[in-house]
Amino acid sequence: MYQLYYYPGNANLAPHMLLEEIGADYELVLVDRSRNEQKSAAYLELNPAGRIPVLVDADLVLYESAAICLHLADRHPAAGLAPALGSDERAHFYKWLMYLTNTVQAELLVYFYPERLADEAAAAAQVKAHAESRIGAMLDLIEAALAAGSGPFLLGAQYRAVDAYLLMLCRWTRNLQHPARARPRLGRFLDTVMARAATQRAFAKEGIAAPFY
Amino acid sequence: MYQLYYYPGNANLAPHMLLEEIGADYELVLVDRSRNEQKSAAYLELNPAGRIPVLVDADLVLYESAAICLHLADRHPAAGLAPALGSDERAHFYKWLMYLTNTVQAELLVYFYPERLADEAAAAAQVKAHAESRIGAMLDLIEAALAAGSGPFLLGAQYRAVDAYLLMLCRWTRNLQHPARARPRLGRFLDTVMARAATQRAFAKEGIAAPFY
Repeated sequence: MYQLYYYPGNANLAPHMLLEEIGADYELVLVDRSRNEQKSAAYLELNPAGRIPVLVDADLVLYESAAICLHLADRHPAAGLAPALGSDERAHFYKWLMYLTNTVQAELLVYFYPERLADEAAAAAQVKAHAESRIGAMLDLIEAALAAGSGPFLLGAQYRAVDAYLLMLCRWTRNLQHPARARPRLGRFLDTVMARAATQRAFAKEGIAAPFY
Repeated sequence: MYQLYYYPGNANLAPHMLLEEIGADYELVLVDRSRNEQKSAAYLELNPAGRIPVLVDADLVLYESAAICLHLADRHPAAGLAPALGSDERAHFYKWLMYLTNTVQAELLVYFYPERLADEAAAAAQVKAHAESRIGAMLDLIEAALAAGSGPFLLGAQYRAVDAYLLMLCRWTRNLQHPARARPRLGRFLDTVMARAATQRAFAKEGIAAPFY
């Protein structure tokens, strides 16, 4: 029995989609961000970085959303959520997951919290605008990769953990001026991933209402 | 025969250290950043994100430094650079690599290139100062993890790919007001990793002069 510490639509969404794909036995534990519970002493014991999510797997307490995705994929090889160890496809899987987490996700955090990098509102506004522009270029790069590939997923015909991660991040762009869904290949990709029963169950269990992305 | 596209001390350094640990057959290919070669059409064919490094492994062209580290560790299991697939230790290995790349490395990029997030110098200076402060808190978190662990490495007694990654990022902090080496556990960690023959060979082949971190 896994426990996934979550807040609706936060970085738990991709791991949650994978738990549903796997058909794993798990329970959700709400971390109430409206009361800043992710910075409480009890939560910092689980994740000293004070961020959501955390996955508890028996004695293992694991944070970092992308690490949780990798761990779940490895623990449940029958679900086919990661390519075989040592294969070229696995290398590309790593590449995309790294790009998504260290580039797209990192820039989205700058976009959502520009005040963390500025003393006053005018500078924060500059930071936010630059981040939005940079996220656009990143989404264009992913759009081009989808156009160059055989689709419908990032690595081709098979749904992988990186696809759940990409949907989660694209959802976060839904209120940008030029959101992910406005790009034709990304739009089709999002429709395809959203059509999966496991995706819909994860969204429903987190209480996420439309528009989804 | 691998090819590693590099520029001295860039994000190629950790993969380079691993190639030396493995004893792999490889050659270095310089990407001349002083001439902006990482944005040339030829290089963008290898990595559309225009960043260093790229690893070429026969038909595989791979970018993202952390992905290259994972791939090398997987392809050469005898080198013991990653824990066994599906183990709790592997999960912690993923966790640290994700934290290093999506949090520490991402913030270091903000610190080194604050103008990418600002219209004018005053705002860029705010961004740089905030990034430096945030990097300090991240290094403190790693220092606390080293203090809580059994050492000398991030995951304990065995040297892993994440340790090369951590040394690379710590090197990048060497000119900060409170660099990584100023923390006692991190300082000892850096000395230990730098004492490895493979580390010294990688530094020498990139032509990196002291101070190393």
